[in-house]
Amino acid sequence: MKPNFTLRLRIFNLNCWAIPYLSKRRADRMKRLGDFLNMESFDLALLEEVWSEQDFQHLRQKLLPSYPAAHYFRSGVIGSGLCVFSKHPVREFTQHVYTLNGYPYMIHHGDWFCGKAVGLLVLHLSGLVLNVYVTHLHAEYSRQKDIYLTHRVAQAWELAQFIHHTSKKADVVLLCGDLNLHPKDLGCRLLKEWTGLHDAYLETRDFKGSEEGCTMVPENCYVNQRELEPFPLGIRIDYVLYKAVSGFYISCKTLRTTTGHDPHSGSPLSDHEALMATLCVRHSPPQHTPSPTHGPEGSQLISVLKEAWRELDLGVAQARWWATFASYVIGLGLLLLALLCALAAGGGVREVAILLWTPSVGLLLGAGAVYLFHMQEAKGLSGARAELQHVLGRAGEAQDSGPASQPALLLGQQEGDGTEEQ
Amino acid sequence: MKPNFTLRLRIFNLNCWAIPYLSKRRADRMKRLGDFLNMESFDLALLEEVWSEQDFQHLRQKLLPSYPAAHYFRSGVIGSGLCVFSKHPVREFTQHVYTLNGYPYMIHHGDWFCGKAVGLLVLHLSGLVLNVYVTHLHAEYSRQKDIYLTHRVAQAWELAQFIHHTSKKADVVLLCGDLNLHPKDLGCRLLKEWTGLHDAYLETRDFKGSEEGCTMVPENCYVNQRELEPFPLGIRIDYVLYKAVSGFYISCKTLRTTTGHDPHSGSPLSDHEALMATLCVRHSPPQHTPSPTHGPEGSQLISVLKEAWRELDLGVAQARWWATFASYVIGLGLLLLALLCALAAGGGVREVAILLWTPSVGLLLGAGAVYLFHMQEAKGLSGARAELQHVLGRAGEAQDSGPASQPALLLGQQEGDGTEEQ
Repeated sequence: MKPNFTLRLRIFNLNCWAIPYLSKRRADRMKRLGDFLNMESFDLALLEEVWSEQDFQHLRQKLLPSYPAAHYFRSGVIGSGLCVFSKHPVREFTQHVYTLNGYPYMIHHGDWFCGKAVGLLVLHLSGLVLNVYVTHLHAEYSRQKDIYLTHRVAQAWELAQFIHHTSKKADVVLLCGDLNLHPKDLGCRLLKEWTGLHDAYLETRDFKGSEEGCTMVPENCYVNQRELEPFPLGIRIDYVLYKAVSGFYISCKTLRTTTGHDPHSGSPLSDHEALMATLCVRHSPPQHTPSPTHGPEGSQLISVLKEAWRELDLGVAQARWWATFASYVIGLGLLLLALLCALAAGGGVREVAILLWTPSVGLLLGAGAVYLFHMQEAKGLSGARAELQHVLGRAGEAQDSGPASQPALLLGQQEGDGTEEQ
Repeated sequence: MKPNFTLRLRIFNLNCWAIPYLSKRRADRMKRLGDFLNMESFDLALLEEVWSEQDFQHLRQKLLPSYPAAHYFRSGVIGSGLCVFSKHPVREFTQHVYTLNGYPYMIHHGDWFCGKAVGLLVLHLSGLVLNVYVTHLHAEYSRQKDIYLTHRVAQAWELAQFIHHTSKKADVVLLCGDLNLHPKDLGCRLLKEWTGLHDAYLETRDFKGSEEGCTMVPENCYVNQRELEPFPLGIRIDYVLYKAVSGFYISCKTLRTTTGHDPHSGSPLSDHEALMATLCVRHSPPQHTPSPTHGPEGSQLISVLKEAWRELDLGVAQARWWATFASYVIGLGLLLLALLCALAAGGGVREVAILLWTPSVGLLLGAGAVYLFHMQEAKGLSGARAELQHVLGRAGEAQDSGPASQPALLLGQQEGDGTEEQ
């Protein structure tokens, strides 16, 4: 790479809202999306909620000349909904499916069946190693009573850890997707603090689009207006996040969003707004390298880690409560079945006993499934909690050995092995 | 690190066979294991099948003075069974749970409930970054008719990809565990070819232990003798694998295994044999650096990737067949229920109709669960197949651009972006 070299990247991100049979005017919107992507010829187009593999295959055929590389990330029962199109060759693809992703019995929400995941593509561009992540976290169906909060925090932590551990040799890291998190939400702060990623909307000096960068706005005719009532301007839950490491500097030259309608025709491409960012990567003079060793950043990191730990701890307790409750129901169901067997054998209320047999067996099997599910949930949450605990333990030791070394130690960017770990 | 510096690592690995209520003499064996680890004071002890967290906590208390760092990897309903004890501080822990891990209805095998995983610990020792992985893959219950073969191949690929993507900045990579794979099995070859890991048993010049390095031997009184009948010497399914990158050289000075009994008392520590390796890491003169660009290694890699692709492809077809079969049963069940409702309402054979209600509902729910499970299995397998397909596609392009660059290109170790990717 030449000293004065600048790499310019044009990125497109959209949650496509392409649910077969359910999403309005899906075929038309996907067709227009393909036309738009072909016309604009971005370096990378990252899409979420492309639930039908057929939609992906149609797009792939259409985009082949301008985006020769493409990948669809398969997981869960339905799929992750994630796919990517790239103008440049992609070295490597892989994916990580989140351990926790809602509840199978919340069939009307459906997230559990999707197998939400994070996809990774590694590109080598002009001698730079670029790790690009695309993801979609569990939806938030009620902000007042959000039963999925703990799962979303656990997903944010898994995402942060996946990025942290897989991007150690990357020069540039880019994360796009629908996080289903508002900018100040715990999961979003946890992700940004632990990975050191910067928010394109907050960093750019040239933004044009919806007010406050919102990616779900009331002007969009596909948006459920009632859900947006508490937010007159809309909400910002889709992101372009980035960082550069080791001698490089990345900045967001321009950021555009759609504003409730297709940039060309009047009708919107999705119920979400598209994000279009132009990023510049260049060699960094030392003062430009973002340093993770600032005191205040370190203390922010610790405070957000503690907050996440508490949230996961609550989640573990709740999951264990459900598992215990289910085990009592199992006991009760077994008792009921024994009673019904005795009644059926003894004659008398035989027909009633036989009638009650079905709900009793159903109760037993249902409670068994609930028990297994919440045991698994408790294990998953306590796994994430243990990882946070370990990071916080190291922070404590670092504080003892002086505040200057603390965040660097936490981020694993220091050589040597000066601390003990319990 | 000084030029003549040598880092010596003493590693212990054991599948502990510590299943509460089921494993024979578990408490006594865990006690003796703790005594042995304390006495020997290894650098790292990596354990599998510690299914009870209480057993881990007892060991942790006992080993605290000699192994101040410890971690238990939680996942699934029961747990992953994996834990580690380290004499040195551990920088970071994380884990990856395998997407596919057997079938929930094979309750007597139980693997599905365990949440088999790979655990990662990152250590910094004398300026070296050490990535240590511990894992346990799905068991093989019948070698003649192995219904879990595809899942184990998918797990081996996920493990290889996880190591590949998380160890890019590591100087030394170490993998220990029970792979449930014989040395020549597809999964084992795939793992070794894709990661470049070397097998301590094949590399060391100083081996003492069971014949042919077997880790399940007929001399062990806890081993099911009937299962070992086709293998008079035993089988080798537990491994210490390693590699060093970028200017370092790693070798296995000594490898020891137990031989069916505790090294001190007569009774064995587990139904598996323990592995004890002494590894040496030092600066590498250029000729010692293992090169991934040798022609034969590259063609071996491609052939094993193709073999794995075919295996996964068969698995996808089979999973889809089961999902289709389950969907027919669902249709049949719905028809039966409608018929029973009509019969019950119409009088006549009312009691029979009511009696048949339970099995019909059961059939319907069961078939629904089987359908969902196999849809998910098909998605998981086709995800892994797509990753293999991409690697093979790149291999094809590399072959077109000359054989010398091909394996390096595959392993992502070349700069520049000379190839197109479809």
